[in-house]
Amino acid sequence: MVTVLTDSDIAARLDARTAVGWMRSALLAAHRGELHSPPRVSTSLGDGRLVFTTGALEGEWYGYRSYDSFDSSPGAQVVVVHDLRTGIVRGVAVGNELGPRRVGAIGAVAVDALAVAGASTLGVVGTGVRAWNQLWAISVVRELTEVTVFSRSVERRNAFAARVSAELGLPVVAAPSARETVEGKELVVLATDSPVPVIDASWIAPGSYVTTLGPKQFGRAEFGPDLVARADVAVTDSLAQTAAYDPPFILTGTLQHDRLVSLGAVLAGDVPGPLPGQTVVLCSVGLAGTETYLLAKLLG
Amino acid sequence: MVTVLTDSDIAARLDARTAVGWMRSALLAAHRGELHSPPRVSTSLGDGRLVFTTGALEGEWYGYRSYDSFDSSPGAQVVVVHDLRTGIVRGVAVGNELGPRRVGAIGAVAVDALAVAGASTLGVVGTGVRAWNQLWAISVVRELTEVTVFSRSVERRNAFAARVSAELGLPVVAAPSARETVEGKELVVLATDSPVPVIDASWIAPGSYVTTLGPKQFGRAEFGPDLVARADVAVTDSLAQTAAYDPPFILTGTLQHDRLVSLGAVLAGDVPGPLPGQTVVLCSVGLAGTETYLLAKLLG
Repeated sequence: MVTVLTDSDIAARLDARTAVGWMRSALLAAHRGELHSPPRVSTSLGDGRLVFTTGALEGEWYGYRSYDSFDSSPGAQVVVVHDLRTGIVRGVAVGNELGPRRVGAIGAVAVDALAVAGASTLGVVGTGVRAWNQLWAISVVRELTEVTVFSRSVERRNAFAARVSAELGLPVVAAPSARETVEGKELVVLATDSPVPVIDASWIAPGSYVTTLGPKQFGRAEFGPDLVARADVAVTDSLAQTAAYDPPFILTGTLQHDRLVSLGAVLAGDVPGPLPGQTVVLCSVGLAGTETYLLAKLLG
Repeated sequence: MVTVLTDSDIAARLDARTAVGWMRSALLAAHRGELHSPPRVSTSLGDGRLVFTTGALEGEWYGYRSYDSFDSSPGAQVVVVHDLRTGIVRGVAVGNELGPRRVGAIGAVAVDALAVAGASTLGVVGTGVRAWNQLWAISVVRELTEVTVFSRSVERRNAFAARVSAELGLPVVAAPSARETVEGKELVVLATDSPVPVIDASWIAPGSYVTTLGPKQFGRAEFGPDLVARADVAVTDSLAQTAAYDPPFILTGTLQHDRLVSLGAVLAGDVPGPLPGQTVVLCSVGLAGTETYLLAKLLG
């Protein structure tokens, strides 16, 4: 029999603190070259694409996550883990919980390592699944006393704030603008689908920390290179993925691109992290193999 | 709950006649542009690769098969079918039965359409899974009275012949050479992993029919362009895949390449098939989407 985990299994078994710990281990394993994390690949199928992000942990397992761009919501992603020695499928996850939680956990690993220790104010632009999972995970690495959320829809931002309060127990307000959401905050999360910048880099206070999760390609990006220019330290969870975007990553060919360092390298201490008071930006692009890492851990 | 089919489920539910009928429909759907069948994609993961062959049937489903090149035998392939409207996973197959049976069935569709109606003699070079599944499927489209099998290992070819006799009930002998296996036969199947040609094209009798399933790339191919040169009609199940090989398809850049026609086009009558007495070669490369087509049909 093949073990199949559904969304309710994931929700029941994967708490944020555990996920953050596992993602920290995965980032370090990728930095050491033990976790293979190649850029994702995709195929075109008429009205949609299928995308595969793959990984292998030396001596342990290989596997992948599949997702698609067909106009079928919510659809379902599939994560598969094979035993490396036998090739047998150790387990499959079908649903939409594992992928976003893993992105949230990676974001929280970065906050924990790079943001000021006492950071307690957080502004979130975007109220979708990615925004939710950042809050889910960041709330276990920092004690958040003031969460501000924004999306263009009043209904959506109010509903999101109500859910954050009810399910995560965080003090939260919905703000009327992106500017009011991020200005003066110690932690900022951009998690939109916007093809154009949603903030002006000048709104980011010195010494604060920003994660960007949304589009970041030429012609379609939720931020501009000015955001990275404003940061003292710019990190990404996958340099390989930033190099593989088509259209190219928004920083490619700019002065900011060569400043990007690997989050794993910073965690390992091989690359300097921020000094006190410095501003940090994380370009979260999705380190491959981390979904399979989570599933492999959940399968025990 | 997600429906998961194992190898025993596939073996119990998928008979050769049904598989051949479904693959004929799939080839025609691909020719009409209703079945999207892009070339496969892969990623490198240290000691192995993960390969994804994807498909989508207009208005019905999308999905894929995954397999790998890790040194883990027998391992397991995974086939996933999503409903196109909802994105929900309709079912998953885990194992090693579906992929090879589908290749066998495609081979039999071609034999049925392109080989002489009364063909009864068949020579098979290679005694692996692909060879087996060609026999499994071809035996329902032609009444085989003389099957000859060869591999370099005496033990393997004798064991294969014994299994063909016992499980498929076919009259079969193991021959001591590839030449004695294919010379004078109406139907020939090449299903080896050989990096060099396993037959000389001159051994193929005029008017006979040849399927090649093994390697067919520059620097690694079980046949030479001379085999295609000897044929009056050369077909493939996927022109898109032949164009996507890296290293290139063995006929690329040769005079034989432009003679290749699509099996689906021949089935549809849009391209002429062989005249009586003409020699035919099928370069079987694996039409994408056909594994998902089979699984979607099995799920009903």
